[in-house]
Amino acid sequence: MHFPHVTIAVPDWVGAFCASWSSGFATVQARAAFVVALSQQNVSHETGGPFAAAVFDPLEGHLIAPGVNLVVPSSCSAAHAEIVALMVAQQIMGTHDLGAAGLPALELVSSTEPCAMCLGAVPWSGVRGLVCCARGTDAEAIGMDEGEKPPGWIVALENRGIRVMRDVCRVEAAAVLQGYVAGGGLIYNGRCG
Amino acid sequence: MHFPHVTIAVPDWVGAFCASWSSGFATVQARAAFVVALSQQNVSHETGGPFAAAVFDPLEGHLIAPGVNLVVPSSCSAAHAEIVALMVAQQIMGTHDLGAAGLPALELVSSTEPCAMCLGAVPWSGVRGLVCCARGTDAEAIGMDEGEKPPGWIVALENRGIRVMRDVCRVEAAAVLQGYVAGGGLIYNGRCG
Repeated sequence: MHFPHVTIAVPDWVGAFCASWSSGFATVQARAAFVVALSQQNVSHETGGPFAAAVFDPLEGHLIAPGVNLVVPSSCSAAHAEIVALMVAQQIMGTHDLGAAGLPALELVSSTEPCAMCLGAVPWSGVRGLVCCARGTDAEAIGMDEGEKPPGWIVALENRGIRVMRDVCRVEAAAVLQGYVAGGGLIYNGRCG
Repeated sequence: MHFPHVTIAVPDWVGAFCASWSSGFATVQARAAFVVALSQQNVSHETGGPFAAAVFDPLEGHLIAPGVNLVVPSSCSAAHAEIVALMVAQQIMGTHDLGAAGLPALELVSSTEPCAMCLGAVPWSGVRGLVCCARGTDAEAIGMDEGEKPPGWIVALENRGIRVMRDVCRVEAAAVLQGYVAGGGLIYNGRCG
């Protein structure tokens, strides 16, 4: 028996978009602005849902790896932006543990608060910080399902040494979500029974 | 800028193992026994952690897609057995939604209760059933970290129309976990701060 390989790759336009980004990544606001713009680009290019994420080295102000939502085009329900960004970053670093000795403390920035799956993925990834732009409630407001998150998830991440920041560029990030649904974007996570 | 593709693929031995399985998949016990045996094979072949999963068509008694833990060899912290099995199944079916119209009601069998990430992944996948062999506490007993699961996760899945069964072949599945650690297997998910 043979089983297919699964390939996850950011769309071709992502590299050019990253190269064209001139505002740098020195501040958390700049990193969040990039990720929100990336989420808008994913909508404009019609390459997935209205979500983006990226892994950064915040101290050096470097982008390590971007991610966009690829659920529908990749036929992969796990291909949320956060999972994609973490996978690409780990591929680049050559390790499953972005917190391994010798690596800088890396940060995951997400255009919308991670869903239950992505929240569960954060501690396994080795990132030392999580920055969220829109809230989960902003995604739910357009009909997206965030899943069942454990109460106290912020404290739980902090207790694992993962610093959490919320609401960075929230208004801009929520506007991308609203624009997606206003433009007739597919709400693909709506299965509830 | 260019970002690498990420490829997730079950090891070569998996196809031959599946082809050699002669007990069928007609009962939930048979499906669980297969998944537990697959988890043992992943340890024996040293191709990842002591976990396996598979997607089945339970009514027809067909295997759709196997998955094994590939975290360390794939440099991918999300490559838990359940995520791998779901990814491969969705690739085979050509859709991110295994619960789409026209598809049979599919079941995910996991050799150990899903961690917080994999639990969050289940509703997005479209499977209509989840069968667990070992408990999360059996994994924690060998030092594995299961993450923060929402209380009442079983009821939450059932409310989404996903039937949950636990403790099928639990003793056999827990023995694989114990054998892994007794054999000096790496506990790779132990980052806690």
